[in-house]
Amino acid sequence: MKVRVHVSLKNGVLDPQGRAIHHALEGLGFAGVKDVRAGRLFELDVADDTSDDALDDMCRKLLANMVIENYRIEKVAA
Amino acid sequence: MKVRVHVSLKNGVLDPQGRAIHHALEGLGFAGVKDVRAGRLFELDVADDTSDDALDDMCRKLLANMVIENYRIEKVAA
Repeated sequence: MKVRVHVSLKNGVLDPQGRAIHHALEGLGFAGVKDVRAGRLFELDVADDTSDDALDDMCRKLLANMVIENYRIEKVAA
Repeated sequence: MKVRVHVSLKNGVLDPQGRAIHHALEGLGFAGVKDVRAGRLFELDVADDTSDDALDDMCRKLLANMVIENYRIEKVAA
């Protein structure tokens, strides 16, 4: 089973990487960019019988920092 | 307009970060994880009249390294 985990910063948490990318896009001449937030994406290939609870646990314990980040689990059709 | 850009390594490109995460998950006792690939996620807020070509350009010039990475643009309903 393929699973995608999207990890993004919570609202209100400063995102220096996103700001740097925003400035760089403006420097390259792209107009109309209002905001950029940077996050992480994990593509996991797990056994078909992996429970949702186990996936949640992986995110909470390792993939995301729950203090400043949110995560979203998306199951991808195999 | 909200746009998500998913950047992931091309098949065949070594992914040390993904391997480290894979090992860490095993160390934490999660069984059944077959593979982990790490990527990046960017959430952009751009003007509504931004063309698809401009978005492609942003990815090619800045957000993704086209030699080793693929990108996917996903428009999110506002």
